[in-house]
Amino acid sequence: MNEPVLARLHQLMTLREQVETLGTGGPWIPAADWTDEDTHLVLHLDVPGVAADTLELLEEGPTVTVAGERSAPGRLLGGDRPSGAFRRSLTFPQDVLPQTGEAQLAHGILTVRFQKRHPTIDVDAEHLDAGGDPGGHDAP
Amino acid sequence: MNEPVLARLHQLMTLREQVETLGTGGPWIPAADWTDEDTHLVLHLDVPGVAADTLELLEEGPTVTVAGERSAPGRLLGGDRPSGAFRRSLTFPQDVLPQTGEAQLAHGILTVRFQKRHPTIDVDAEHLDAGGDPGGHDAP
Repeated sequence: MNEPVLARLHQLMTLREQVETLGTGGPWIPAADWTDEDTHLVLHLDVPGVAADTLELLEEGPTVTVAGERSAPGRLLGGDRPSGAFRRSLTFPQDVLPQTGEAQLAHGILTVRFQKRHPTIDVDAEHLDAGGDPGGHDAP
Repeated sequence: MNEPVLARLHQLMTLREQVETLGTGGPWIPAADWTDEDTHLVLHLDVPGVAADTLELLEEGPTVTVAGERSAPGRLLGGDRPSGAFRRSLTFPQDVLPQTGEAQLAHGILTVRFQKRHPTIDVDAEHLDAGGDPGGHDAP
């Protein structure tokens, strides 16, 4: 190869090293989303290949921590999939009732539904603060 | 240029895409691994929540392209999960026999097994180039 191509390759290799240490050198951090389902807050976590019996869920005040692991594939020739253990702590975007989380694992996605402290009752996402409200049957 | 260099360049192009879309929430590029299973090369792709009927697989010479999609979750409050369509092209790390790919989707991981042109016959991963080798029963 000629020199400009080699120089370019070298630049790119350096870049690759930088990026690899950026993303894959560190721990595995699965992508997560929060969605609103009126009476519930739902956490979605991408955990392909993670066995249900390795998953742990810990609620602590305003945060929930999810941990789990998956084994590395066999004789690896190359790639960029993370493996091993992960642990991710997330802050609830709205108040939830403690210990109401119900987890489900399907198609590589962990879904955890938490009961909201203040259910959303209309499309404008108003919150109920009155404990004695006749519509607030879900509140304790 | 020879094949290893082409493969390397291809990796780097993919990397460039990833770097360019790092901060922008750009296209979804699922993580992928290649593993060696003696007579087969295996591609592993993390595609949690992707329905099998949206997946497409296209072999073109030294590359295989995988495409698919998943819908965004409901009312999103925040998060970092990619959604929508993805398309990723990968270069075979070793020669495979054309159109031998067999795909399987489980636990959010797409696994595609390709028959190698030159099966690995020992732990040192030596390659057979002789067509008449007594150990190479899988070669055509």
